[in-house]
Amino acid sequence: MNFCPSCGAAVVRRIPAGDHLPRDVCSACGAVHYHNPKLVAGCVAESGGRILLCRRAIEPRRGFWTVPAGFMENGETLQQAAARECQEEALAQVEVGRLCAIVHVLHAQQVHVMFRATFASPEFGVGVESLEVKLAAEHEIPWAELAFPSVVFTLRRFLEDRAAGREELHFAAIERPPAQG
Amino acid sequence: MNFCPSCGAAVVRRIPAGDHLPRDVCSACGAVHYHNPKLVAGCVAESGGRILLCRRAIEPRRGFWTVPAGFMENGETLQQAAARECQEEALAQVEVGRLCAIVHVLHAQQVHVMFRATFASPEFGVGVESLEVKLAAEHEIPWAELAFPSVVFTLRRFLEDRAAGREELHFAAIERPPAQG
Repeated sequence: MNFCPSCGAAVVRRIPAGDHLPRDVCSACGAVHYHNPKLVAGCVAESGGRILLCRRAIEPRRGFWTVPAGFMENGETLQQAAARECQEEALAQVEVGRLCAIVHVLHAQQVHVMFRATFASPEFGVGVESLEVKLAAEHEIPWAELAFPSVVFTLRRFLEDRAAGREELHFAAIERPPAQG
Repeated sequence: MNFCPSCGAAVVRRIPAGDHLPRDVCSACGAVHYHNPKLVAGCVAESGGRILLCRRAIEPRRGFWTVPAGFMENGETLQQAAARECQEEALAQVEVGRLCAIVHVLHAQQVHVMFRATFASPEFGVGVESLEVKLAAEHEIPWAELAFPSVVFTLRRFLEDRAAGREELHFAAIERPPAQG
């Protein structure tokens, strides 16, 4: 941040009175501009035991596979955001179920919140942000071509839980970006 | 947002190509500035069956009671954020436990993530953002003087679960601000 979104003057980086961290403070109007982690919502959507996967048409990680997920919008719940991402990326209508994983992606200043889901109707297709969409059985998951560590973590915990007949909530913290390739 | 935080030019509100919602778009550099819900992390911290409550020294809802909670910072996990808020508001060191509630505070564009916690050491005190801090037994909770609906929801579910000997995760969505008074 270089300029104040409120008044357009230059911002300076300093610790405001009563605070303990450096913030972006406007040199003219004095407004303090905080930067906080962004929420990403997504889901592992099952149909007949197979899992909905999308190959990304957009950066970052274009060409790699993911479960439907994206930035949460104002005015929606996490469950609504996860369902919307399924609609946008995979033209799929899902019922969002229990929470599966919360992954702190510290280097990206994001928190990924991943639910379980089931198909509300069997159709799906290729959304504008996807190159390809498919239902994958467990042995068909392209582990080496998954886009993000949070997706790997979520799918592993999902599959372990499914095999064990349980639906737990799992936490992880990731501190480094994946190697690009 | 009136001015572009990157280049300082005026922003206009329009739907960018490939998007479906109006965004703040810079009239000069073209940068799209998204606004997403902010995360608040907090906890219900127990000591000997009593619950840690803080009377707020700051707006909004100065003078009303809350569990320790506040905006998550970049670079920390939700659990670390909840523990930090206990330290700042109540000078208490806690061990953060299982997730208790996720409350979508839609009108405020916030998601409140509330954990269970226990005291790691028995001391506590009055942090700079608090007027008063106390341990309250269930019958001592000042329900009519709680600061936010998300705190009411979290404490009710926490107490129901505790009485039933379980630790579930509960969701809620709140669409209106509390009546001021």
